Amino acid sequence: MDSPPSGPVAPAAVPPRPPGETVVPRDLDVFFAANRARIERELFEFLRIPSVSARPEHSADTARAAEWVAGALRTVGLQAELVQTPGHPIVLGEWRGAGPDRPTLLIYGHYDVQPAEPLELWTSPAFEPTVRDGKVFARGAVDDKGQVFLHIKALEAHLRVRGRLPVNIIMLIEGEEEVGSTHLGDFVRANTDRLRCDAVIISDSSMFAPGIPSILSSLRGLTYLEITVDGPAHDLHSGMYGGGVINPATALAHMLTTLHDDAGHVAIPGFYDAVRPWSPDVLDRMRELPFQEEVFRAETGAPALGGEAGYTTLERIWTRPTCEINGLLSGYTGEGAKTVLPARAMAKVSCRLVPDQDPHTIERLIEEHLARVARPGVRVTVKHLHGGRPWRADLEGPIFDAARRALAAAFRRETVIMGEGGSIPVVADFVDALAVPVLLMGFGLPGENAHAPDEWMSVENFELGMRAVATLFDLV
Amino acid sequence: MDSPPSGPVAPAAVPPRPPGETVVPRDLDVFFAANRARIERELFEFLRIPSVSARPEHSADTARAAEWVAGALRTVGLQAELVQTPGHPIVLGEWRGAGPDRPTLLIYGHYDVQPAEPLELWTSPAFEPTVRDGKVFARGAVDDKGQVFLHIKALEAHLRVRGRLPVNIIMLIEGEEEVGSTHLGDFVRANTDRLRCDAVIISDSSMFAPGIPSILSSLRGLTYLEITVDGPAHDLHSGMYGGGVINPATALAHMLTTLHDDAGHVAIPGFYDAVRPWSPDVLDRMRELPFQEEVFRAETGAPALGGEAGYTTLERIWTRPTCEINGLLSGYTGEGAKTVLPARAMAKVSCRLVPDQDPHTIERLIEEHLARVARPGVRVTVKHLHGGRPWRADLEGPIFDAARRALAAAFRRETVIMGEGGSIPVVADFVDALAVPVLLMGFGLPGENAHAPDEWMSVENFELGMRAVATLFDLV
Repeated sequence: MDSPPSGPVAPAAVPPRPPGETVVPRDLDVFFAANRARIERELFEFLRIPSVSARPEHSADTARAAEWVAGALRTVGLQAELVQTPGHPIVLGEWRGAGPDRPTLLIYGHYDVQPAEPLELWTSPAFEPTVRDGKVFARGAVDDKGQVFLHIKALEAHLRVRGRLPVNIIMLIEGEEEVGSTHLGDFVRANTDRLRCDAVIISDSSMFAPGIPSILSSLRGLTYLEITVDGPAHDLHSGMYGGGVINPATALAHMLTTLHDDAGHVAIPGFYDAVRPWSPDVLDRMRELPFQEEVFRAETGAPALGGEAGYTTLERIWTRPTCEINGLLSGYTGEGAKTVLPARAMAKVSCRLVPDQDPHTIERLIEEHLARVARPGVRVTVKHLHGGRPWRADLEGPIFDAARRALAAAFRRETVIMGEGGSIPVVADFVDALAVPVLLMGFGLPGENAHAPDEWMSVENFELGMRAVATLFDLV
Repeated sequence: MDSPPSGPVAPAAVPPRPPGETVVPRDLDVFFAANRARIERELFEFLRIPSVSARPEHSADTARAAEWVAGALRTVGLQAELVQTPGHPIVLGEWRGAGPDRPTLLIYGHYDVQPAEPLELWTSPAFEPTVRDGKVFARGAVDDKGQVFLHIKALEAHLRVRGRLPVNIIMLIEGEEEVGSTHLGDFVRANTDRLRCDAVIISDSSMFAPGIPSILSSLRGLTYLEITVDGPAHDLHSGMYGGGVINPATALAHMLTTLHDDAGHVAIPGFYDAVRPWSPDVLDRMRELPFQEEVFRAETGAPALGGEAGYTTLERIWTRPTCEINGLLSGYTGEGAKTVLPARAMAKVSCRLVPDQDPHTIERLIEEHLARVARPGVRVTVKHLHGGRPWRADLEGPIFDAARRALAAAFRRETVIMGEGGSIPVVADFVDALAVPVLLMGFGLPGENAHAPDEWMSVENFELGMRAVATLFDLV
């Protein structure tokens, strides 16, 4: 997961909350403080492994990272094994000592990282973790090694200090998240008995703003299409043929324009039919977030914000589906003037979806729409590239109550509920296969460069994240 | 010039015309027949010089071709010199022996050629002329060395057989036609006294179909723009920002769609204001041409022809202005799915113009139109890349009468008048600077691959072209 769209907000915008009755248990807090230097050393060791899952030349490193995670789990007292897949192995750790009457939590994360290129844009080397300004800079610092490791250290605190955990734990740490979690879904579906649990916890996202602990209420889904419009069999001279044949780029532009109406609503018939309304309560809480339009605009660099009429920016990103052009290609695109009438025009188009839109249904609606608006003289083909279902948490139940209280205890500030415009496809896999709530509780921050050079994680968030997770185990 | 759009037509569609009173003079015809082998040898020598004006590594070859042309002119009896320019030299040949009472004809052509790449697609080497199936295959065979050389040989026939020409001649053969005739306009404007003449003759185009001698009635002009739409300062994640900022590719598609109405008319206000109507007579003659829609469609490979409502295909290409997208580029265009919200979208757009549309006025109208339809949230910039004025012959006067008769005499078939959808920018330069009629009388044929591998010129057209030009000199 990349960072959320919210720009840095003045922390003062949310008044500090009185810590109330819940605090980080003193024994665990002392453990974290006493072991701080060692924990950092171990984290750095993890971050030094260039486990770039997309690159075959890093296969051995990726395998080594899996071994490292399994070793770290065993060291703190879990049973751990590597589950081989046709791709990179899954690390499965277990501690079932709390007994069958206690809840079981499945903690999901990933040990693989994005490629670090372009290397020359890193201030310090991507695989040599370096602390500057309260941030650990390294590829994978926040996405997701740092966040995985803080869970492992929360387990360690309980097991070292108290000799046991108050809950049963399954750690499921995969090595293919950055390449589409290719083999995770099959593994989860084939092992529902072993993975049976009361809740899934994922820390692979970000907080709304520094100092504001956050729980994700929703993720958007996705359907991604490539539209190809073919006209002439080969590029033609625009002088000698122009006017006599339909230009596929013009035909494509026309088709793309029909995807929206003038108010910015998606104009594909049936597109909004399955959109489930949000409760006024959630929308109200969203409006209360200290979101600053101008900070967000400056972050994008766009001359002005804009979008679907009748919605705020956060509503547009978190609660509304979109239809975006991701790429366009046709004819001559080099320097200067070349008078071709292109043979072909291509657009990549994707829709972000919200519950209960179904990616396959939306694909079909788009295809039908394009067939309706396509003009004679060109051939239109649509290729389905990618899809993922949207998700919405119900935000009720013991795991959410515990998380809200644990986060508030660690960060000493009220936990907010935030949406997320992006997608984490494995969430739907967990919901489907295990039928349990999924808690998305991230410790990243806006601007953390998750997929870019100079990726970082806040040292404070790492420290408070460990404490929040350790506290959560006590509260479930 | 490339080949015209008309596909091969059955020659039987035009009944052979009785040769009538005009025939190719017997003495010149005998000369051409007697010297056929030598003339072909000389042409091949010319074609072997790789005078690729666009390639610095061929500068010496291009200079050698200029020397070769000057030498060929001197050999047949003209005075000839090279005029140096900041680019490739202009060859200027003169024969003024007909005296001030006789007409002066300026014959324009070019000795430079297009690059021959991709070389592997040539059946025989690009710079080793080879005859197959009645065609000379070589780069420059038809564009324009073969057509230049047949004029030189027509001059030679008169001078060798009769010791004189019935007209004064200026040969103006440039070496930069394939790179935009960069220095020709300045030379013409600076030398209007020396270049003063009664008509300009250009053979750098094609006939309507095999066996049908043709005179061009018109050329379309051009204005070529690059439209850039900037939104965010950098590509954004379409999940995390999508819906909250205006997508520049969507904005561009919308702007491009407003360029036409649903009937295929250009919808830029004022676009057609300066279009001069065609005489019903010319339109009637156009309709009588043996044009076969299905042959033309097959040549393009498009599923169906199409264009502006209310016009035939030939009218659309020859008599109507267009607005075409020549290129589109935005965001991610590689394999697979990348969920970017692009920072920028670019379109190359060009309009083919007809008399009396002015390229600068049309540029301004487009720019005003785009400014009107652009939506907030993006920045639109328009860059002017290229322009050229349209041209229409008046088709009256002694040079056209002489050409019609001379072509009919050589080809033994009535000369047709045809339009041309492409542009030859130097025509407007000649019209402006010299204020004389321009006769466009080409001997190429459809499918001649002028800018492609396996360029060819019909041997018969070369032979008949020499005879037509030699006959023309007698008839002016």
